[in-house]
Amino acid sequence: LDEAAMADARDLQSRLTKPPGALGVLEELSVRLAGLAGRCPPPSPEPAAVAVFAADHGVHAQGVSPWPQEVTAQMVANFLAGGAVVNAFAAQVGAEVTVVDVGVAAPLAPAPGLLPRKIAPGTADLTRGPAMAPEQARRAMETGIEVARELVAAGNRCLVTGDMGIANTTASAALIAAFTGLPPERVTGRGTGIDDAAHAHKIEVVRAALARHGLAPAESAVIGAGGGPAGESVTVAADPMRVLAAVGGLEHAALAGFILGGAAARVPVVLDGVIAGAAALVAAALCPDVLGACVAGHRSAEPGHAAALEHLRLRPLVDLELRLGEGTGALLALPLVQSAVRVLHEVATFDSAGVSDKNGGR
Amino acid sequence: LDEAAMADARDLQSRLTKPPGALGVLEELSVRLAGLAGRCPPPSPEPAAVAVFAADHGVHAQGVSPWPQEVTAQMVANFLAGGAVVNAFAAQVGAEVTVVDVGVAAPLAPAPGLLPRKIAPGTADLTRGPAMAPEQARRAMETGIEVARELVAAGNRCLVTGDMGIANTTASAALIAAFTGLPPERVTGRGTGIDDAAHAHKIEVVRAALARHGLAPAESAVIGAGGGPAGESVTVAADPMRVLAAVGGLEHAALAGFILGGAAARVPVVLDGVIAGAAALVAAALCPDVLGACVAGHRSAEPGHAAALEHLRLRPLVDLELRLGEGTGALLALPLVQSAVRVLHEVATFDSAGVSDKNGGR
Repeated sequence: LDEAAMADARDLQSRLTKPPGALGVLEELSVRLAGLAGRCPPPSPEPAAVAVFAADHGVHAQGVSPWPQEVTAQMVANFLAGGAVVNAFAAQVGAEVTVVDVGVAAPLAPAPGLLPRKIAPGTADLTRGPAMAPEQARRAMETGIEVARELVAAGNRCLVTGDMGIANTTASAALIAAFTGLPPERVTGRGTGIDDAAHAHKIEVVRAALARHGLAPAESAVIGAGGGPAGESVTVAADPMRVLAAVGGLEHAALAGFILGGAAARVPVVLDGVIAGAAALVAAALCPDVLGACVAGHRSAEPGHAAALEHLRLRPLVDLELRLGEGTGALLALPLVQSAVRVLHEVATFDSAGVSDKNGGR
Repeated sequence: LDEAAMADARDLQSRLTKPPGALGVLEELSVRLAGLAGRCPPPSPEPAAVAVFAADHGVHAQGVSPWPQEVTAQMVANFLAGGAVVNAFAAQVGAEVTVVDVGVAAPLAPAPGLLPRKIAPGTADLTRGPAMAPEQARRAMETGIEVARELVAAGNRCLVTGDMGIANTTASAALIAAFTGLPPERVTGRGTGIDDAAHAHKIEVVRAALARHGLAPAESAVIGAGGGPAGESVTVAADPMRVLAAVGGLEHAALAGFILGGAAARVPVVLDGVIAGAAALVAAALCPDVLGACVAGHRSAEPGHAAALEHLRLRPLVDLELRLGEGTGALLALPLVQSAVRVLHEVATFDSAGVSDKNGGR
């Protein structure tokens, strides 16, 4: 982040016709985005594009979701037909929707708005072995970088993360446990809606996966799941790609790349829910500076999402108990991000508007 | 609220291509707005208009704000020139800004976008007598009703509250203390930004005003400020117009009318911060049903605002430590309200999209 541009933004905010600090979190955000762009005011984050990365998950075989796996492909068709919530929310805020197939199990027919970038027809079952080969994780990540680059080259000035993949909250929980060191029961939620028994089962699946891959957090390590906590966190931090390949999804890998690509282009990346939060942990482990470009669009109802945001020290803009994914929470936050920047472009200063300053000065 | 329309909305939400309940607070909001409109889907809350009610306050003489009173008129000029934050946020979300002079101390020249509806050149000092004559409060309220009616007649399908008035957080605190029964120190904030000493003074001003008008809450009553707590709350509930005239502002009266007018037209009214919250307490005391039309746009940094929302049982959509007023927080929430309704209009059902339901059904 460019310190000079941030200082300029702070100075400008103090001269605008409003009490200093009165825009709260949005004022800090505008300063950060000036730092990201390296100038004040930063470019308006419009137009915006949401990329919905779709993939399937081998862990679906463990019964972690009540939804059949075919729903991933069916929802992709729904996105392309404009019938999903992500389409409605994108239309509301004027964002473009692109769907990227990085790993849907079913073959998908070519369609406008669909980028065919399938790395594999879904991941392997992470409870039985690595979800991805290292090469698959790397290629999926490169795909995400490339999609970010293409969307920026097409003129977009804000990227929004989206995702679709039945069972992807399970992989997210495993990633979040591994990167935050929190126990599975703290980061595993009910996803699209499961009962207590199914939830308990899902937690055990995550726990088994972590143990299988030597990623068990400190709390589990005590009961014999592997090395000590210090050793674990060194491993995780030292080789985030191994963790990603072991328990992540193809869309997590692509989203991590999308975040890296957006940050490299100095374009804000508005993060959606728990899947994006897990991917941001991967991206930040590879390159902590990417967080300067990350805007937490919302906090979802998934406990792992709150844990990821806390770990990343990102404050969500919207907090309405959403748990849908697709990019919907991030799209709700988009006008807030755009409004924060618009202030720096359009609001008059005390001097220019002839408004008396606090304590009667000019 | 129309129960049949709400049942229809709940049923429709359950058939849309998303997990049931996955839109959290927005799902409940869409159901309520269907109930307000009496049909499902309810009309899209677009276009939206923000009405900024501007007025001055006699209590300014007590030194409750570091800003000179002339700033009210100067900011009105800034609104009309398009240079304030409310203009930038309204432009972002496509809302129209109307400024209503219900009580600015200075004479204002006619201008496009300004409705001249001055009831008085500001209120009287509420620490020395009633802020308004009963007739003034009534006329200001009727003005608000009329403005709501005119904006709806002009085709607006969503109303957004805005306000401007140096010292109006003091009057808001007094209203909120009177209607919630909370002590002044719980509901009096720092407004546009004051230090500890000024804050303590502001609290004492509010306390004195409540005592002067026999509105002291239970906690203060103990130390001799008037009748018992039961008697007080009966008085407040029985005669909200008297409370409004005693300690409110002309913009509070107009905003209460604006809320009543919007609710009567069955149009959602998105409330901004602490001034709107205080006005909503008045409106709800006169007619509890108006709350069905009220959407809490945000929760501001003012403690009295949180208290008012809790009392009204309204959940804010945005919570970003804003403390600017003007309608800015409500405008940030507008796309969220519009998105919530858009879902009912545009999202495909499981049947229509050919997506398998949870547990594999159709």
